[in-house]
Amino acid sequence: MADAANGRAGGDVKSTFREIYFRLKAELLQDPAFDFTDEGRQWIDRMLDYNVPGGKLNRGISVIDSYKLLKGTELSDDQVFLACALGWCIEWLQAYFLVLDDIMDNSHTRRGQLCWFRVDKVGLIAANDGIILRNHIPRILKRYFREKPYYVNLLDLFNEVEFQTASGQMLDLITTYQGEQDLSKYTMPVYRRIVQYKTAYYSFYLPVACALLMSGENLDHFIDVKNILVEMGTYFQVQDDYLDCFGDPEAIGKIGTDIEDFKCSWLVVQAMAHANESQKKILTENYGKSDSACIAKVKSIYKDLNLQNVFFEYERMSYEQLISSIEGLPGKAVQEVLKSFLHKIYKRQK
Amino acid sequence: MADAANGRAGGDVKSTFREIYFRLKAELLQDPAFDFTDEGRQWIDRMLDYNVPGGKLNRGISVIDSYKLLKGTELSDDQVFLACALGWCIEWLQAYFLVLDDIMDNSHTRRGQLCWFRVDKVGLIAANDGIILRNHIPRILKRYFREKPYYVNLLDLFNEVEFQTASGQMLDLITTYQGEQDLSKYTMPVYRRIVQYKTAYYSFYLPVACALLMSGENLDHFIDVKNILVEMGTYFQVQDDYLDCFGDPEAIGKIGTDIEDFKCSWLVVQAMAHANESQKKILTENYGKSDSACIAKVKSIYKDLNLQNVFFEYERMSYEQLISSIEGLPGKAVQEVLKSFLHKIYKRQK
Repeated sequence: MADAANGRAGGDVKSTFREIYFRLKAELLQDPAFDFTDEGRQWIDRMLDYNVPGGKLNRGISVIDSYKLLKGTELSDDQVFLACALGWCIEWLQAYFLVLDDIMDNSHTRRGQLCWFRVDKVGLIAANDGIILRNHIPRILKRYFREKPYYVNLLDLFNEVEFQTASGQMLDLITTYQGEQDLSKYTMPVYRRIVQYKTAYYSFYLPVACALLMSGENLDHFIDVKNILVEMGTYFQVQDDYLDCFGDPEAIGKIGTDIEDFKCSWLVVQAMAHANESQKKILTENYGKSDSACIAKVKSIYKDLNLQNVFFEYERMSYEQLISSIEGLPGKAVQEVLKSFLHKIYKRQK
Repeated sequence: MADAANGRAGGDVKSTFREIYFRLKAELLQDPAFDFTDEGRQWIDRMLDYNVPGGKLNRGISVIDSYKLLKGTELSDDQVFLACALGWCIEWLQAYFLVLDDIMDNSHTRRGQLCWFRVDKVGLIAANDGIILRNHIPRILKRYFREKPYYVNLLDLFNEVEFQTASGQMLDLITTYQGEQDLSKYTMPVYRRIVQYKTAYYSFYLPVACALLMSGENLDHFIDVKNILVEMGTYFQVQDDYLDCFGDPEAIGKIGTDIEDFKCSWLVVQAMAHANESQKKILTENYGKSDSACIAKVKSIYKDLNLQNVFFEYERMSYEQLISSIEGLPGKAVQEVLKSFLHKIYKRQK
């Protein structure tokens, strides 16, 4: 197993990572802290398969990649397993947020299938399933990390990042409510704050922080690394917002709905910042409506304002600043971790 | 503060306990892990006041009462504060479950006011508020207990109990779905399992376990205590189910709706166990309907089957068995903790 995860192409890490999902699931379904009925076990089994492994798995796999770069040597089977287990904890965390976010946003599809709460006989039981997904994380951590010297730091890390993500989601929900009254509330500082908390901490900082803890490091000494990863997470979300409107639906696997959903997207923030009064009026009148004529008017202003070029310029500058910040850090291994992360996302089309 | 909590009547402990809520809230609203906006801070402030302090506070206060009995001496101000902080963590946990349960059950009122998700401008943001309530617990624990030798055990305890509660809620939701197809699925073993996980662990075991950890004990040595508390929690829920139908609405502060809500209540379980075929048919046809004629038919069968007397007999036997189990335990202090807990609930009318 270690061979597969170490030696060869990225695809092998992914298949090792995938295999470990089944082991973790099997153990959760035998957890002695709960006396399962057959129906209960079947429910959880199906709920996990539906919600946990179907994403791109980038967050989870980043733990293994980062840990390998930090160690600078081949990993033992046991080290690969532990890094995968932490990677899956992040995927479980993501699944938990997505299941609940889809309920709150009244979404229809996720990862190319119906949202879990829309599946027959699920409904609002999905809210409790989200809670159970969240509760599986400390079960996994306790089972495999209880005796590690960094166990308590892992618990603190997951708790803090979950708190930040939930707080970011609150900010997003409040901001959307305000934006619906007055679109000019969507500004760059507001946008950055939402993205930092709602996305960047758990998607970018958390995988690297897990790898640092496994390597015996004290996270208090890596505040600069955290700040760079939060910047990278912000850049990633800006790409996401750009691709929602301008990406190839084939490549990204969905048709974007940010405009009709009244999302506080980087594009509408930039549009409001660059628009003249008449363009602002058109944006205000048409943003957040599912009528296709309204969507077309918004997109037409995005084109008039040349937001694609604004994005390309933002992308170039972000990249340069990130590389320069990374090269200013002490420690080659950490620099490599961050550069590898950045090169995975730079100019991505999906 | 210590004087008030130690020396005098129960009301003083309660007022000390209440005061500490405001201190905890003020600190959560200044948490450096999140960069609050004014609107965000106001939202959380109002959400906490609406959902956290409005219950009977029995669970939270049990931590202080139990800790005092275990110590056998007066508590210092600091000890009172820490016991109150843990007590409030249990109240926060309860608030989190209630906010989400009310969404899942589509309930209307809670603690004499509208359910949080039904409040104007809240809606499904309430699901995220539930998550934030849950996330406040590790924030409180980290702030006040990070340096205690039992910190990691506290985290493990809260994690395990939350997992058990969420699993019990899953079982309840699945069982209710099955019961709607076939009322005879509501049996005593099914009932006991739901109550054990959904209610007893967090309401009865958790407060005592917190007090034991504060006293420096190893919870692995208190499995008998845990089992007795789970039995007590089951007895408590049976009372709850009894009072829902036969209690005084003035005293319990609400009008029971278990029959129309198709709840897996102790009363319907007993009714199905004691009913003849024609009575079972009437129960099946009328249970879970909001029509008042249907409710009256169910209640009339409860009376025909003399469930009030069945309950009184159950109450007497539970009490005797609990006292006998408690007196079989080693250690007078622990016996006192459990007896004091039992006497708080024995023959309660609300």
